[in-house]
Amino acid sequence: MPNAALLETFPNPYPERDYEIAMECPEFTSLCPLGGIEGDADDLKALQGGAPDFATIHITYVPRDVCVELKSLKLYLWSFRNDGIFYERAVNRILDDLSKVTQPRWMEVVGDFNIRGGIKSVIRARIGARTPE
Amino acid sequence: MPNAALLETFPNPYPERDYEIAMECPEFTSLCPLGGIEGDADDLKALQGGAPDFATIHITYVPRDVCVELKSLKLYLWSFRNDGIFYERAVNRILDDLSKVTQPRWMEVVGDFNIRGGIKSVIRARIGARTPE
Amino acid sequence: MPNAALLETFPNPYPERDYEIAMECPEFTSLCPLGGIEGDADDLKALQGGAPDFATIHITYVPRDVCVELKSLKLYLWSFRNDGIFYERAVNRILDDLSKVTQPRWMEVVGDFNIRGGIKSVIRARIGARTPE
Amino acid sequence: MPNAALLETFPNPYPERDYEIAMECPEFTSLCPLGGIEGDADDLKALQGGAPDFATIHITYVPRDVCVELKSLKLYLWSFRNDGIFYERAVNRILDDLSKVTQPRWMEVVGDFNIRGGIKSVIRARIGARTPE
Amino acid sequence: MPNAALLETFPNPYPERDYEIAMECPEFTSLCPLGGIEGDADDLKALQGGAPDFATIHITYVPRDVCVELKSLKLYLWSFRNDGIFYERAVNRILDDLSKVTQPRWMEVVGDFNIRGGIKSVIRARIGARTPE
Amino acid sequence: MPNAALLETFPNPYPERDYEIAMECPEFTSLCPLGGIEGDADDLKALQGGAPDFATIHITYVPRDVCVELKSLKLYLWSFRNDGIFYERAVNRILDDLSKVTQPRWMEVVGDFNIRGGIKSVIRARIGARTPE
Amino acid sequence: MPNAALLETFPNPYPERDYEIAMECPEFTSLCPLGGIEGDADDLKALQGGAPDFATIHITYVPRDVCVELKSLKLYLWSFRNDGIFYERAVNRILDDLSKVTQPRWMEVVGDFNIRGGIKSVIRARIGARTPE
Amino acid sequence: MPNAALLETFPNPYPERDYEIAMECPEFTSLCPLGGIEGDADDLKALQGGAPDFATIHITYVPRDVCVELKSLKLYLWSFRNDGIFYERAVNRILDDLSKVTQPRWMEVVGDFNIRGGIKSVIRARIGARTPE
Amino acid sequence: MPNAALLETFPNPYPERDYEIAMECPEFTSLCPLGGIEGDADDLKALQGGAPDFATIHITYVPRDVCVELKSLKLYLWSFRNDGIFYERAVNRILDDLSKVTQPRWMEVVGDFNIRGGIKSVIRARIGARTPE
Amino acid sequence: MPNAALLETFPNPYPERDYEIAMECPEFTSLCPLGGIEGDADDLKALQGGAPDFATIHITYVPRDVCVELKSLKLYLWSFRNDGIFYERAVNRILDDLSKVTQPRWMEVVGDFNIRGGIKSVIRARIGARTPE
Repeated sequence: MPNAALLETFPNPYPERDYEIAMECPEFTSLCPLGGIEGDADDLKALQGGAPDFATIHITYVPRDVCVELKSLKLYLWSFRNDGIFYERAVNRILDDLSKVTQPRWMEVVGDFNIRGGIKSVIRARIGARTPE
Repeated sequence: MPNAALLETFPNPYPERDYEIAMECPEFTSLCPLGGIEGDADDLKALQGGAPDFATIHITYVPRDVCVELKSLKLYLWSFRNDGIFYERAVNRILDDLSKVTQPRWMEVVGDFNIRGGIKSVIRARIGARTPE
Repeated sequence: MPNAALLETFPNPYPERDYEIAMECPEFTSLCPLGGIEGDADDLKALQGGAPDFATIHITYVPRDVCVELKSLKLYLWSFRNDGIFYERAVNRILDDLSKVTQPRWMEVVGDFNIRGGIKSVIRARIGARTPE
Repeated sequence: MPNAALLETFPNPYPERDYEIAMECPEFTSLCPLGGIEGDADDLKALQGGAPDFATIHITYVPRDVCVELKSLKLYLWSFRNDGIFYERAVNRILDDLSKVTQPRWMEVVGDFNIRGGIKSVIRARIGARTPE
Repeated sequence: MPNAALLETFPNPYPERDYEIAMECPEFTSLCPLGGIEGDADDLKALQGGAPDFATIHITYVPRDVCVELKSLKLYLWSFRNDGIFYERAVNRILDDLSKVTQPRWMEVVGDFNIRGGIKSVIRARIGARTPE
Repeated sequence: MPNAALLETFPNPYPERDYEIAMECPEFTSLCPLGGIEGDADDLKALQGGAPDFATIHITYVPRDVCVELKSLKLYLWSFRNDGIFYERAVNRILDDLSKVTQPRWMEVVGDFNIRGGIKSVIRARIGARTPE
Repeated sequence: MPNAALLETFPNPYPERDYEIAMECPEFTSLCPLGGIEGDADDLKALQGGAPDFATIHITYVPRDVCVELKSLKLYLWSFRNDGIFYERAVNRILDDLSKVTQPRWMEVVGDFNIRGGIKSVIRARIGARTPE
Repeated sequence: MPNAALLETFPNPYPERDYEIAMECPEFTSLCPLGGIEGDADDLKALQGGAPDFATIHITYVPRDVCVELKSLKLYLWSFRNDGIFYERAVNRILDDLSKVTQPRWMEVVGDFNIRGGIKSVIRARIGARTPE
Repeated sequence: MPNAALLETFPNPYPERDYEIAMECPEFTSLCPLGGIEGDADDLKALQGGAPDFATIHITYVPRDVCVELKSLKLYLWSFRNDGIFYERAVNRILDDLSKVTQPRWMEVVGDFNIRGGIKSVIRARIGARTPE
Repeated sequence: MPNAALLETFPNPYPERDYEIAMECPEFTSLCPLGGIEGDADDLKALQGGAPDFATIHITYVPRDVCVELKSLKLYLWSFRNDGIFYERAVNRILDDLSKVTQPRWMEVVGDFNIRGGIKSVIRARIGARTPE
């Protein structure tokens, strides 16, 4: 189950400068909350839950006082592994959890999900305005 | 025949935040309404209609109260399979049908059609203004 | 329904030399005979049949007395559009139909099918031995 | 010789909405008006004209009342095949001819010419202002 | 836990011909049996097991009397999701399970695992001799 | 009209050694001898012939006493520009003409033709046996 | 240990014009200050320090009176080789050191670090406003 | 030695319209003015000058009354072949020479130089403001 | 200094079957034993040794009784970091060390080194004969 | 002028094992001995010679007693810079010079030359038989 308590931070080493941190996490996996699109109820009993979803999660932000600690982020993303959750909710949830612990100047989370039913989905959410180039 | 009644929605899980949903559907196929460019009338009797067209459809939008349900979208796109329709009409029709059921903040539909007569065509239609970056 | 009668040939212009003809047909589509993997019975009523499959078909052969006429091949491949057929059967059927009308020195047919259930399938069948390099 | 009379149009099926049509034509060929860069006069007598040029032509526009008919566009582009014409003139000429028959809200023509003398050339011309994103 | 009982087969529609079936499964995930390379014991308690591994599994074979049913293969691969298993064992285990139920003329299984500790690993196992080209 | 008289040679500077020369000619164009697949008779009058075909020609050989002079090869390939000729005939004709003037140890000609009717064709012809690696 | 004294400059040959210099340095390596993510204390004794990190460093700037001398930049980047330093600190440190010796109109430094724990990190820092396009 | 006298122009065929011309010249080579980075003095005597540099030069401009003649541009770029010149000076010099003879509405020259000392350099200079999109 | 004592093994889980293990290690770095190609003696004092070299190491083998433990391999490759060694010696040394501890049926080591002096080098060494396909 | 005296060797550090060394040299340039294909006599006076040719040279060999020293190879290849030489002669000359100083078990030299007159040429020469895989 997504566990925001796993997230840790460390003090931003350059708080006086606005700079951008981007992380790409290609090993995100969770379960479909319905089991729906591709399997029927009987099959899914094998997994005691819904069908697996796979995504690459992109996180970009400008830190204020703290940065996300990389290893804790990995563990936090692992905590979705056996949780049933919609694409839209997963991406917005990650944005909520990460922005609450880091209080960034702005942050964007993008979830790039694998093909299901012949359709690829990408969800993009953001808080704050991107620092102009 | 394109059937908008197949489209279903579910409540937007984060209606308080403007976020973007993008879907890529590489398996769109319909028929040419004329049979025109590449075959003559005799050949097309084999299909009892026009020559097949193939496209990737890209749909991007910011949801308001509801999101498009992925499986229903797949079935809706399947409903063009044996319908004779021009490129320009297909793309605008998908935009009309999807925006009517979801009432998004903005929505864009792009149809990227395969080469015909040595020419590749891409049609891009939109309602509403894209949320500024 | 696959219709081998659509296939036409023309005399091989260089019968005295073994040379190779390779054709790539990226717009093959048929229907799943079960409706199976990704949709349930109710949805498929919209199409009065099974879920669509998509593939690129590769055909390679060394002609003997005749070559396949390109336009008739296109029409023949179109004739699978609304037919329910398994991957393995489709590829072997195309090989049977094409080799019967052309009697080639050797022929290979490869069907490269789109992802279904997160799995991509490629079927490869051949008659005769490939001319050694 | 470039023949604008070959261009045909059909009524825009969605005149009430600004939408974009983009076409890519990778099989454009014309002749060099000088015969110049790569061949000398003697060689060119073999072709009774200048050396061949090859380009991909990209056409993008927002239609007003009519759209360009695809097959007529193909024939129009074929009509440059044996004509001696400079790159700059060809691109601007296509823009003139196409915009005269379609009266678009805006239109851009790009000619992406093959390497000559170790140099690649791309010419880009436009009428009207691109609809803001 | 890997469950070979999930695998189902269907009769080979062309048993009289040696033809090849290749499947690519990019969504394989299991757990590290040690928890080892990248996390320490404390972190892994969050998952009640080892760190996740990710791989693409490639399966190629020439069927004898039966073929692997695609949906059952998907469910079988899902059954590794929460199992701790070494790379070498996983690949050889899949080969054992699949070859036992299908008795193919030959079969190869390749596991292409994601980078761990800056090193990418690919394991390739086979039974029987590949049909000569 | 294909004109083998345009081909010139120069003495092989290293006749005592078997070495390979490979040339790639991406600007080959000829006309369809039927006008067939994509246009009707009326349209083709604009060109006074058939519809244009486009290909990349690959030529590979081991020279004996002479090599093909590059500029003369270019002019020879240009001489197909306004000639109606089938794919199979064009490739075998180029092989005949080139091998007659150079008498190579072996030679292969491959014609990689652009998509027509949604199908890509590649024709490969050879004389002599390739020098073993 | 990062050694800014290694950096040398030469007079900007065109100080009267704002122009941009971009350098890509794919061979940056330093050590992790913690040894943390992927190794334990015992292993790292082999290196007498932390685990190696690898990155490509991108430097872009508009020079004022002086430019960075390329060879001295290479030596300066080498000086991080056996230093334990966080990603965020390394990128901001390079920006500080380079901008102090060159006093550019603006400068951006991007560190594109290799995957650690399945996550890729990119850090981007800048001083001054980019000259508008 | 760079020789601007080699540059020739021809009258702009469409002076009444602002359109863009872009040229890519991948075969630029000059010599290092120092001989410096990679060779020592003794070795360079073999070349009677500095070590060779290689770059792709990109030139983009909107013509006013005249355009650069392509063949003369090639000869002009060849004239740097045996000249010792810094990257920054070469790019700005090309911009000066080309803009003096063409007096464009705006012009940009980019020099994309090969790796030296493990570092890739790109220099970008411009006169005038780019026509807004 | 390369330290073969760091290498550890684990028992081959499928010793009864010949299967292949391939590992790609893109983060290999060592020092040039001469300091030679790109720097002079003074500069290298900053590093107290030669100029850094970078390579991707590919290791492929068929195990007999034991497999290389992945983490110990990483540490072994790290042990070259501050060692001056020629390309040819490094690749052959890795092959010697790895084959001594694993006694494989066959093993190949490839070192793909970064560009130096504008030249890329790849060294490939093997013991035993590759198991035939 | 090509100067084989520039080539130096060093003792093969593993003479007891057959292993392969491959080098890729993308910065080869020479002059056309005719000035021929693309320029006329007047233009070439600017260069006091023929038009420049550009190639990537690939060298692969199994050393016997000595290896080619990398820096001396670079200088040797530079020595072709202002020499007029045919493609076929250049490749065979490099093979002659390198094999004479190294006496390898086998050696292959490939010259991959840039497009001239719309045609790309690749020349491949070898002495000795490649060690079987």
